[in-house]
Amino acid sequence: MLKIDLTGAAEFFDGAGLDCAAAAEAHRVLASRTGAGGAFTGWLDLPARMENGELNRILAAAQNIQRQGEVLLVVGIGGSYLGARAAIELLRTPSHNELPGATAVYFLGNTLSPDAVNELIAVLGDRDFCVNVISKSGGTLEPALGFRVAKALLQQKYGRNGAKKRIYVTTDANKGILHDIAVSEGYERFTVPDDVGGRFSVLSAVGLLPMAVAGIDVEAVLSAAARELMDLDLRSPENPAWQYAAARQHLYRRGKSIELLACYEPSFRYMAEWWKQLFGESEGKNGIGIYPASLEYNADLHSMGQYIQDGPRTLMETVVRFERPAGSCKVPFVMGDPDGLNYLAGRELFEIQQIAADAVKTAHISGGVPNIVLSVPQRDEAGFAALVCFFEMSCAISAYMSGVNPFDQPGVEEYKKNMFRQLQAL
Amino acid sequence: MLKIDLTGAAEFFDGAGLDCAAAAEAHRVLASRTGAGGAFTGWLDLPARMENGELNRILAAAQNIQRQGEVLLVVGIGGSYLGARAAIELLRTPSHNELPGATAVYFLGNTLSPDAVNELIAVLGDRDFCVNVISKSGGTLEPALGFRVAKALLQQKYGRNGAKKRIYVTTDANKGILHDIAVSEGYERFTVPDDVGGRFSVLSAVGLLPMAVAGIDVEAVLSAAARELMDLDLRSPENPAWQYAAARQHLYRRGKSIELLACYEPSFRYMAEWWKQLFGESEGKNGIGIYPASLEYNADLHSMGQYIQDGPRTLMETVVRFERPAGSCKVPFVMGDPDGLNYLAGRELFEIQQIAADAVKTAHISGGVPNIVLSVPQRDEAGFAALVCFFEMSCAISAYMSGVNPFDQPGVEEYKKNMFRQLQAL
Repeated sequence: MLKIDLTGAAEFFDGAGLDCAAAAEAHRVLASRTGAGGAFTGWLDLPARMENGELNRILAAAQNIQRQGEVLLVVGIGGSYLGARAAIELLRTPSHNELPGATAVYFLGNTLSPDAVNELIAVLGDRDFCVNVISKSGGTLEPALGFRVAKALLQQKYGRNGAKKRIYVTTDANKGILHDIAVSEGYERFTVPDDVGGRFSVLSAVGLLPMAVAGIDVEAVLSAAARELMDLDLRSPENPAWQYAAARQHLYRRGKSIELLACYEPSFRYMAEWWKQLFGESEGKNGIGIYPASLEYNADLHSMGQYIQDGPRTLMETVVRFERPAGSCKVPFVMGDPDGLNYLAGRELFEIQQIAADAVKTAHISGGVPNIVLSVPQRDEAGFAALVCFFEMSCAISAYMSGVNPFDQPGVEEYKKNMFRQLQAL
Repeated sequence: MLKIDLTGAAEFFDGAGLDCAAAAEAHRVLASRTGAGGAFTGWLDLPARMENGELNRILAAAQNIQRQGEVLLVVGIGGSYLGARAAIELLRTPSHNELPGATAVYFLGNTLSPDAVNELIAVLGDRDFCVNVISKSGGTLEPALGFRVAKALLQQKYGRNGAKKRIYVTTDANKGILHDIAVSEGYERFTVPDDVGGRFSVLSAVGLLPMAVAGIDVEAVLSAAARELMDLDLRSPENPAWQYAAARQHLYRRGKSIELLACYEPSFRYMAEWWKQLFGESEGKNGIGIYPASLEYNADLHSMGQYIQDGPRTLMETVVRFERPAGSCKVPFVMGDPDGLNYLAGRELFEIQQIAADAVKTAHISGGVPNIVLSVPQRDEAGFAALVCFFEMSCAISAYMSGVNPFDQPGVEEYKKNMFRQLQAL
């Protein structure tokens, strides 16, 4: 369902052209699950597994949480919150928590800022709330401390037993600190699968429970994702995941070391954050990897536009476009035409957005920035599923093409070791 | 008041060392106002000019707006909104609009997304509101269309005459589309100074009016900024602006082509966006310039941490630290110590944040990423002023050191030309 348009990048490809054969080979390694990190390829059939597994319990828990209060506090960091936050902002709105109707979802456990924690407590006010703590092991410091804070708030408000009914845990099925706490306290539990790394986990309970609480149709997400993964697997040379992976690697090897992921919808912001983790953490190792950066258009055309047009020619640009808006917004007519824009009066803003996007594309290409366009029909469950599956698949393929293990993150341990050493010396 | 610590970068400096003499020379060119773009150096004495100029009218208008309703809609793009948004998020909180008490401030005119506009209208609801439209010329498409939408909403709610009393215009003092509209309609007007470019304009009415409406003490900001500019001007070889500019240029010439601006406070997010425009638009031209990227710690340590630690060694990292938090947040004690973290119980979260920050610094340096620390005492008006003045000064110096005009943005015109050609063909 996702379409890729490489015409704006093609003039930057040299004679060798795209190495789609290498992408296909990387895909075969991925599908065989025998490549580096092959034990973490469970996301390849996660949608079908969820439909036959935890889905109904997730839906029931989401209904419970909605009945229990106005707010869900999600405690998690990295892959344990970015996917859900991305989905909620894209499919609802970044202002989700300010609109009446659906349960508000706030995120905790991803900061050590006392001010940020205190501000969140002020925003929570005296509203009824539940907590969903998400951590594979329970040993990560930020969410562990966030959970301590959230639990203390719950116990203060509802007592020890009342709090227990409001804590939902997403963690390892069989082991780990958080698993053990959940079992001994009797919290309702959901699973972080063993064969799915954090940044590939949005279609497990990790992402689905907060999404369902926010009012997203997660059944529609899963069924669209299952179809999408099948499509991506069967299409041959035109497989868009191969094309994207091959184009990125081709351009990277020719000096395009920064990829700008841009979108004209402000609601895409956390999708871009999710994408940065996915690609940055999968590819950035052994001294190589494209730097993943993101931009929000049109806003950032008026901040980073100058650099993109005239700075070092080390950029490639990938633009996500939605083919249809959710609603209508027409340019108002103004008597006397003081700003000279009445020639646009009555036009759909979306039509003008499309023209702006085409103009930007032309300008950036002429400035020496290869342009890739990814398009999906709409900002809806199917569009979200298509983007997630496409990016996960193309990321794994691209990482294999560059010779690294897409599924490990050895570099993340370095600061943790230093930190725990210092903390334990307190 | 801002302190710079280059010890984490020094081991990456080669024998030549920092060229502080070149920074000093660039500073002299800047101060003489005779360098490239010298006509746009009015920000060098903007705080004092504002104190003796529009300040009292800004304060009075802010009080009026607060009396007139619960919401201010700011219509602007690029330098016409980033500074105010940065200040409001940093000095109030990113959740400012969700907290009772102060007037909410929303931003329009920086998007062509109909969904984003419709969502903002839904969030606005039936609350009373005013509009502050900010544009030097009035000819920029996004805010011009945003102003049409905002004005139509006002007129629908308050009638033509009622709307007039709720529109505040910040624009050129003497000319331009928006100036002419404001004069003919009798809107209250504030000035975008002729000698201050958009990205340097936060301490003019452009930034100060929305900040004052949100409850920020803009008098304190201006007096701190005046002191800061004087300090930055008089200090000699230890001038932190020289050191930052010289360190950036030294590292850039040795292959560090991406600068990561990181902060441990989520409220810093839009300060980083403001910084990206400031440096990206000032330095990114003629095929050169450091790519300005930003990260929110601790969250992004769990998404981009792997890349920073192990990806290509083309990164330098600048970390903004606040020496004191606004309030206290202690780690709760948990009976039985199920997560093994009771050794931290009773400790201030801020203390743990500082240890984490030190651990990250050590890890990143050992991974080959030069580290610069900028610190200010607090997330308050004086801290904001110090950051703004320091970054503006060091940016202009750094751009002069690299041989470009810090104050133009010729590349931004390219897409606009394409766009208007297409639009007029509609």
